[in-house]
Amino acid sequence: MNDVEKAILMKKDRMNEINPFFKEVYQDFKEMEKLFPRILQTEIPLLYQSATYLLKSGGKRIRPGLMLLSASSNRYDREHLLPFALALEIVHMASLVHDDVVDAAPLRRGKPTVKKKWNNRISVYTGNFLLARAMRLMGSYDDHRINQTLSHVSLEMCKGELSQIDSVFTLDDRMANYLSRIKRKTALLLSMSCEIGAYLGKADEHTVRNLKVYGDYLGMAFQISDDVLDYLPANGKFGKTPGGDIRQGLATLPLIYALHHAKEAEEIRAIFPKQQKTDAEVERILEIVRNCGGIEFSLGIGRSYIKKAKERLEDLVNPNLKIALGEIADFVMERDF
Amino acid sequence: MNDVEKAILMKKDRMNEINPFFKEVYQDFKEMEKLFPRILQTEIPLLYQSATYLLKSGGKRIRPGLMLLSASSNRYDREHLLPFALALEIVHMASLVHDDVVDAAPLRRGKPTVKKKWNNRISVYTGNFLLARAMRLMGSYDDHRINQTLSHVSLEMCKGELSQIDSVFTLDDRMANYLSRIKRKTALLLSMSCEIGAYLGKADEHTVRNLKVYGDYLGMAFQISDDVLDYLPANGKFGKTPGGDIRQGLATLPLIYALHHAKEAEEIRAIFPKQQKTDAEVERILEIVRNCGGIEFSLGIGRSYIKKAKERLEDLVNPNLKIALGEIADFVMERDF
Repeated sequence: MNDVEKAILMKKDRMNEINPFFKEVYQDFKEMEKLFPRILQTEIPLLYQSATYLLKSGGKRIRPGLMLLSASSNRYDREHLLPFALALEIVHMASLVHDDVVDAAPLRRGKPTVKKKWNNRISVYTGNFLLARAMRLMGSYDDHRINQTLSHVSLEMCKGELSQIDSVFTLDDRMANYLSRIKRKTALLLSMSCEIGAYLGKADEHTVRNLKVYGDYLGMAFQISDDVLDYLPANGKFGKTPGGDIRQGLATLPLIYALHHAKEAEEIRAIFPKQQKTDAEVERILEIVRNCGGIEFSLGIGRSYIKKAKERLEDLVNPNLKIALGEIADFVMERDF
Repeated sequence: MNDVEKAILMKKDRMNEINPFFKEVYQDFKEMEKLFPRILQTEIPLLYQSATYLLKSGGKRIRPGLMLLSASSNRYDREHLLPFALALEIVHMASLVHDDVVDAAPLRRGKPTVKKKWNNRISVYTGNFLLARAMRLMGSYDDHRINQTLSHVSLEMCKGELSQIDSVFTLDDRMANYLSRIKRKTALLLSMSCEIGAYLGKADEHTVRNLKVYGDYLGMAFQISDDVLDYLPANGKFGKTPGGDIRQGLATLPLIYALHHAKEAEEIRAIFPKQQKTDAEVERILEIVRNCGGIEFSLGIGRSYIKKAKERLEDLVNPNLKIALGEIADFVMERDF
């Protein structure tokens, strides 16, 4: 079985599978879930509805999970950790809500997205509300390092989005730019989850640093695996329709590889910048990327990040933590499909 | 000359007139303007362009102005004050940028607004970038009170927006709801500007509290005067087309008064909830509101806020500050038209 076949086979396991890794902190997860509605309480019914909407749709809680695990490297005090864990998930939710904001531009396959009246405005202010709640939760520590880290991650996430918007449809084929975008988009928040988790758990600076770097590499692999998913054939109810990034003009790693290595690269260059693509055109790009080995290459890069992430766990003294974080790392590239 | 005539006559003085009140802190304004581009510096050209766009269009800098004046009540150290002054203006800019986010809903007089590709998304992330920059500037004080105040104001501003969205076209005629919306939308940030200015200037708690309340009342009057403006006849190049709030389904003070006191209130109730209104319909509502005294009533409420604001200045010991803040208060209702 080659990489691609294995990836397709495992794609159906994708959903709701990461939770078992967090079994060490299961009680905290339960406490955290109970606290969300209270934290997001507001006397404006519409705002409460929009702010808690994402809670109902589940989510793997990977950021609080990593944070709580990282904190368990040393001292562990749940009361002290939960506000930050909540804040991490809320920052993530805010980014999803802001991601809902779309333009009336003809970028959604030529059809207007079905959106309620005012939905964009509601998304903006719901996202802001979530960010402000997270800010308050993090502010409750009254700790300069924590406050600085949040504004740093927020800034970088915005830069990542804007540079992505800037590069859309332009077919930027520079791998360094891609890596810098996904670092900002995904890796930094995971890195911060591990870093501050360890820090709040009073780990020594060496451990804090190692877990921070672990989170960074894990996040890189996480996003790469997500981007690869868009190039795999659809697979039953767990699969998403492939080619979404191509339609939206987003050049990710498999495509960037194909631009440099596929003999049909010129064909991609001709089709990709079109704002409206036919299904056949999208299918053609998918085919070129798959045939030239773009998926295997990307999985390889992802695996090398995982390898580097796991190296950072070597010095950990807590054996349970070492095993749990190592399993999460393996899962991202080997089973997250 | 009655109130309305006076208001119309003074409307043309509206722009760029508030700066003279800040002459006490003129040097700081100059320093501050120089710092903006450096603070908003980023290696993403599109982001730098969008983030600094508002700087070029001027602005009265009322929030940093109030803050710097309030700081001058006591000790004054420019280096210590400027980060917060910058942050206040940047928070305000973020709210303007996020306000640019619109829906494809048919709310703009039946015409699609002329917007660049991706403009909504750019607005969201530019606003977030500005907020994160402000957060970092405020975080640089490493002061719990300052951090808590920012997240509090952010939260309340979001609540204000969502409750406004919630009430749009529903013709909510409760004055208490209107006052609570404008408090969140406008008054809180002005109040915070004065409060933290005094606090950073090491004023005693009594003065901090008085200036905070002064800023609150000033902000209420400020927003009321802005809302009244929408009911005054257009007036040359300084006037904005009246009736914008009516078209957007926003019930402000003059309209709320008319709903309770105009004999043609039922006519308003019939027209107002329509998402598309003809020019004649908008004109009819304007006429009813003007004829029943809705403008005079609103100006009266605004003036009573100004009176209460000025009472809070009585205990100030610095005579220059007392005069400057008193003049600003007078200007808001008497000359801001």
